[in-house]
Amino acid sequence: MNISTHMPPYDTVDAYPTRHPDKEQIIERADPVLWSEWHEGAPISRDEATRYAKNGYLVRHDMFADDELDLMVETARGLRDTDPAERPADFVTEPGSDDVRTVFRLDEHSPVFARLAADTRLAGVAEFLLNDRVYLHQSRLNYKPGFKGKEFYWHSDFETWHAEDGLPRMRSVSASVLLTDNSRLNGPLLLIPGSQNEFIACKGETPDNNHESSLKAQEVGVPQPETISKFARDLGLDAASGPTGTVVFFDCNTLHGSNGNITPDPRSNAFFVFNSITNRPVSPFAAAKPRPAWLSNRDRIMPIDTIDGPITR
Amino acid sequence: MNISTHMPPYDTVDAYPTRHPDKEQIIERADPVLWSEWHEGAPISRDEATRYAKNGYLVRHDMFADDELDLMVETARGLRDTDPAERPADFVTEPGSDDVRTVFRLDEHSPVFARLAADTRLAGVAEFLLNDRVYLHQSRLNYKPGFKGKEFYWHSDFETWHAEDGLPRMRSVSASVLLTDNSRLNGPLLLIPGSQNEFIACKGETPDNNHESSLKAQEVGVPQPETISKFARDLGLDAASGPTGTVVFFDCNTLHGSNGNITPDPRSNAFFVFNSITNRPVSPFAAAKPRPAWLSNRDRIMPIDTIDGPITR
Repeated sequence: MNISTHMPPYDTVDAYPTRHPDKEQIIERADPVLWSEWHEGAPISRDEATRYAKNGYLVRHDMFADDELDLMVETARGLRDTDPAERPADFVTEPGSDDVRTVFRLDEHSPVFARLAADTRLAGVAEFLLNDRVYLHQSRLNYKPGFKGKEFYWHSDFETWHAEDGLPRMRSVSASVLLTDNSRLNGPLLLIPGSQNEFIACKGETPDNNHESSLKAQEVGVPQPETISKFARDLGLDAASGPTGTVVFFDCNTLHGSNGNITPDPRSNAFFVFNSITNRPVSPFAAAKPRPAWLSNRDRIMPIDTIDGPITR
Repeated sequence: MNISTHMPPYDTVDAYPTRHPDKEQIIERADPVLWSEWHEGAPISRDEATRYAKNGYLVRHDMFADDELDLMVETARGLRDTDPAERPADFVTEPGSDDVRTVFRLDEHSPVFARLAADTRLAGVAEFLLNDRVYLHQSRLNYKPGFKGKEFYWHSDFETWHAEDGLPRMRSVSASVLLTDNSRLNGPLLLIPGSQNEFIACKGETPDNNHESSLKAQEVGVPQPETISKFARDLGLDAASGPTGTVVFFDCNTLHGSNGNITPDPRSNAFFVFNSITNRPVSPFAAAKPRPAWLSNRDRIMPIDTIDGPITR
């Protein structure tokens, strides 16, 4: 069944209006964080489900066997080492160098990573969290070099996905699989636990082709510093660190960012955004046209058939 | 006795030639790290002395009473709040704003911080570490804002102080007194333990007025990334964090740096460089003229009379 030709089941009423010309506004979340009731057959423990609902993220260690991790790390290295002449346009390089920084549409460029995305340990968990079948809204492999890794300022992914991609509701979850060890010192993912419960409708209208600059340093669609201070003061701050193979699931509206990294230790991760098939994109809510397909899948919406068992070559 | 009129006791032979036009070179340290033998009357424990000698730094907690800390924090706030019209030239503001970022020659602008510098808990420890009377080569109060605190790349202070200020030998120690809580997440001082034992003679000649750009982002006088990687791999990496009042002593040649800080938590510290009076500056070893006096004291070299007892208003 090609459900991408169906009409979206969510209507196009804007539940989260944002990008006001002159004011920031806080709106209460109108959607669940954890969409399922926990049950015995769930792919995460009851305690994990409770923590995800409360904090808006969940860090899971020891999810993969050593040979699965070796395969992922080796596959990531192979993708980065692709001959520059043969690289598809989804391979983005560092400014002024031939070094690959990001591979977008990762699942289309690598059977190993497509298999990883479909694994019950990723897509299976996403289905449970969202209580629906899921597809990939975005996928990418990130290489952050040591010494000059740059920071990412605080933001909610959903704010952009709603404003610029047209995702109607908060029914998506990101999964980041760490392919390097990540300590508290080499720029780990920072999160504000509980921030997913309020939507910060941001100030500032969306410029045309905003993604061309926002991927480098986001300026539109970010909360005011005072708002982030208030959230951090009230809710605290946490870092998602762990050894290679750690998986971080985080709700689409959880405020997050990361510091730069002057340590010699690079960071690399495979990143998948799972969206509920019920929540597929409509017209952007606050942008003239949708972002390109490599950032925001709207043409190849295929529900994932989850796969159990070890990931092998 | 005004010893600043004496001839420097160290001759002007260059023990650490650096800023080669075309190569980086590693030279073994020719000076002790810990200049004293530990004894019962020493101001630090035997274990602390051993760790300082081995690692090139020492973190000390709980050195000050609550009312001493309150006084320092309040004094720092008062300096920052000085009317812009009345601020001396040593008060440096953020680009594009009136917010004070650094107060140089801190000891000359604040009796409280002059008293702090002279305290046996700072100058007394410095005298012991360097086995000599000491004076202030540099002092400053740093305010690093939350959200946009910038990183400082890896460097040895001594490399600059030798090349650009003319300090002959490795006989100086910095003391940083934290005036805010510093966690592993808001950009603490990162150090490579043991790196003080080798001098990295850097590649690249010194441009005129190098300090005008090097204070923003140092480009000359920094080790190559491969060298830092090797040091970090062989020796490890540590972060000096702790609550307000924590004191970090670090040898002039210990490699250090810090990540940027996107967290809402600002960082502030009072920073003092104690130099042995035997080690006072001669002509710069690798620059056309010395840096200005607010960065590099060469005109007011007054040995400190250390003071015991509580710091009060």
